[in-house]
Amino acid sequence: MGDNKNFVKEITNIDEDFAQWYTDIVRKAELADYTETKGCIAIRPYGYAIWENIQDYADKLFKDSGVKNVYFPVLIPESLLQKEKDHVEGFAPEVAWVTEAGGEKLEEKLCIRPTSETIITTMYSKWLSSWRDLPYVYNQWCNVLRWEKETRPFLRSREFLWQEGHTIHETEKEAQERTLKMLEIYADIAEKFLAIPVIKGIKTDTEKFAGADETYTIEAMTYDGKALQSGTSHYFGQNFTKPFEVKFQNREGKQEYAYQTSWGISTRLIGAIIMAHGDNRGLKLPPKVAPIQGVIVPVAMHKEGVKEKVEELYNSLKDKFRMELDLREQVSPGYKFNDWEMKGVPIRIEMGPRDIENGVCVLVRRDTAEKIIVNLNEVEDRIEKLLEEIHTNMYETCKKRMEEKTTIAHDLDEFQTNMNKQQGFIKTMWCGDAECEAKIKELTAAKSRCMPFEQEHISDTCVCCGNKAYKMVVWGRQY
Amino acid sequence: MGDNKNFVKEITNIDEDFAQWYTDIVRKAELADYTETKGCIAIRPYGYAIWENIQDYADKLFKDSGVKNVYFPVLIPESLLQKEKDHVEGFAPEVAWVTEAGGEKLEEKLCIRPTSETIITTMYSKWLSSWRDLPYVYNQWCNVLRWEKETRPFLRSREFLWQEGHTIHETEKEAQERTLKMLEIYADIAEKFLAIPVIKGIKTDTEKFAGADETYTIEAMTYDGKALQSGTSHYFGQNFTKPFEVKFQNREGKQEYAYQTSWGISTRLIGAIIMAHGDNRGLKLPPKVAPIQGVIVPVAMHKEGVKEKVEELYNSLKDKFRMELDLREQVSPGYKFNDWEMKGVPIRIEMGPRDIENGVCVLVRRDTAEKIIVNLNEVEDRIEKLLEEIHTNMYETCKKRMEEKTTIAHDLDEFQTNMNKQQGFIKTMWCGDAECEAKIKELTAAKSRCMPFEQEHISDTCVCCGNKAYKMVVWGRQY
Repeated sequence: MGDNKNFVKEITNIDEDFAQWYTDIVRKAELADYTETKGCIAIRPYGYAIWENIQDYADKLFKDSGVKNVYFPVLIPESLLQKEKDHVEGFAPEVAWVTEAGGEKLEEKLCIRPTSETIITTMYSKWLSSWRDLPYVYNQWCNVLRWEKETRPFLRSREFLWQEGHTIHETEKEAQERTLKMLEIYADIAEKFLAIPVIKGIKTDTEKFAGADETYTIEAMTYDGKALQSGTSHYFGQNFTKPFEVKFQNREGKQEYAYQTSWGISTRLIGAIIMAHGDNRGLKLPPKVAPIQGVIVPVAMHKEGVKEKVEELYNSLKDKFRMELDLREQVSPGYKFNDWEMKGVPIRIEMGPRDIENGVCVLVRRDTAEKIIVNLNEVEDRIEKLLEEIHTNMYETCKKRMEEKTTIAHDLDEFQTNMNKQQGFIKTMWCGDAECEAKIKELTAAKSRCMPFEQEHISDTCVCCGNKAYKMVVWGRQY
Repeated sequence: MGDNKNFVKEITNIDEDFAQWYTDIVRKAELADYTETKGCIAIRPYGYAIWENIQDYADKLFKDSGVKNVYFPVLIPESLLQKEKDHVEGFAPEVAWVTEAGGEKLEEKLCIRPTSETIITTMYSKWLSSWRDLPYVYNQWCNVLRWEKETRPFLRSREFLWQEGHTIHETEKEAQERTLKMLEIYADIAEKFLAIPVIKGIKTDTEKFAGADETYTIEAMTYDGKALQSGTSHYFGQNFTKPFEVKFQNREGKQEYAYQTSWGISTRLIGAIIMAHGDNRGLKLPPKVAPIQGVIVPVAMHKEGVKEKVEELYNSLKDKFRMELDLREQVSPGYKFNDWEMKGVPIRIEMGPRDIENGVCVLVRRDTAEKIIVNLNEVEDRIEKLLEEIHTNMYETCKKRMEEKTTIAHDLDEFQTNMNKQQGFIKTMWCGDAECEAKIKELTAAKSRCMPFEQEHISDTCVCCGNKAYKMVVWGRQY
């Protein structure tokens, strides 16, 4: 890894093999690694620090909106999982079962939670008694397990980390408002924190969560024009509260079943960051989530005064930004430049003897490679503004790509032509029939992403069958 | 629960049945509840908020000392668990096994982590190459599972939440320093944050962690004089790094096995808080960890101006302290007083029409029941100081009890007499022989807690066999 040229070459070209490029980034930027437990990853410090920043930002938004955190058991008895018919059909095939424990075979096997509606709703039924107790607006940050056949770090791992919010309410209206409120919060996280533009919408019946009345989603687009479902919020109505007997005495003194929601985002967002922002030089981290926002690399470190000066600069910045000072002696500045670019640090600060003489340092943007010479007394202000500019530029770059790679199709021919040309999102009218959805998927490998909140009128008829159109749908291939 | 008298009576008397009192507090203060998954609890918002405060405080201390957070898989292949002989002997009997997943029987069964030395050390062996990479000072906040036969919420639950730190180092000395450093941090958390005095020491060989060379511990004392192991830090030497092949090129260019530590604290600390501080009125929370530090209860809320005034007071305090305003209309002030006392809120603030007239409010301490009339313009300062005073008083109360319930024994008769009188800690000399330890346990149900760092010379001979003494040991019955 000593030679700069070789170093960059070690990452697969992003346009030649995007999937391999992705795996290279995950491993070489030391975000995560494969483990002896098939399909499960170890999240390394640099990757986990990204997750911690997402958690901090999200948890604050949650709590400001009235969410309280809780924790429920990781193991769920088989009988509980089976109480809601659609739910068990959706999840049973991909769960892992504990059948032995403490040296004995269990009487009833226990699954590792793939999601916690069943165990949480059971407890709600024990706790709830009056409308005065409502709402329960609870969330847990935890691990879940889904036995996927094909896995990919962060995007589709058998075990992953997430938050799952589970709420019950007095009225349908209040529950629906919470469902949408959480989708807005998720869009905020994606766009304002991760610089990833998303489409907000509602899933078709085929694509909604097992057991939900309605599933809302935020859909992002990757570098190669595929779709990435990045957060979902579900309205359950009384689908779970009825079989689980979650009743309360309402204001009229009558027993009523509560109205329920659930919603989640996961470590998949780390995959979204990599796939939305990365390039041939490696990872490119949005400034707000970056564990290291700026790295100082001394040039000609052995020259008198250089080490002292960069340490001084580091100390003056470290309480204001998340900073790193790279004083490694066994590698060259050039190696360090590549290394930190590969790790996606938004700003590199170079400082050598001549800069010190002139009272300046050089800021290098990860997003544009632009070099900016800055007086040392202005550097703090400049970094602050630059981090904002980088965030905006990264968001706009993704937005532009999403616009360029979103097309309209009036019929299946046009759909296939567009999809073959550049993947991307395709907007069409749709009749509402699951058969048309299935046919499109079979022909094009694209699934319905959602019926966007922002509907457009493209034509009067379904792209597939030509019957009367119900809604505009956005379609895309997915990771 | 409407009648005040009945309300308090619903908690079992602490001196009559401490175990039942404990369960009552856990459930009635809504900290946690039993679930359909036997031996596993659901941690409710009030209980989880305590854990979040502990996490925040601990995580900051960890990071200040150089710790980085990570995440490793919850499932560990059987073959990995078996690589270290003592470790597998210690943990295999109490693990839960996943044998089926994704609709198929697994070729190799996977255990749910009881602790993560094996899977983490395996990854370290993949990552480590040079002394320059060291140390790895990693930690994860996660769930673990140990199939206990007898469970008790927080103290001994089959699943519990904890942090497990796992570090590897270039030298034995550095690893040992880290082991002790973490014990100091744990003592800081117990004493400065949770107001629980602890004894620091080293475990005997019988009581140390399966696979460790040395286990250090902090031991707290409960209200009824039992011991509660509240945090442990282990030095492994090369016990795991040899079988797991965790090697690095040292400064002399030779291959060397790394030196390792691990350390953990868990939701058991919530049990420690309850058992160390609680009383017949319920939970008593140390101010720094209390989710609600002060609760405002209006008196004669229906009288003109009262509601406005308490809201004004609440708004003036809520950004400075963790405050609650109790405006419930369906229950009396007396009911609220009892309710918040039971929930252990450190300060209650009462305000009624006469107080408003006089420009004062009444602060009531949870720890002493003392009432303090305070001018409204001084209330913020007074609360700040009072929270400190309450912390100190709660710490001193526990300290005094620990001193009173710690006795010295020179022989087994004296040991048994003391233990029968008041449980508590007993200090004795010990020869170092595991047989004496076993005999004492059999006779008195007391186990060795640790060989305290602060050694005293009680006599020249072992309390049990009369042979030459090796160390002073503290003994106690345990939860």
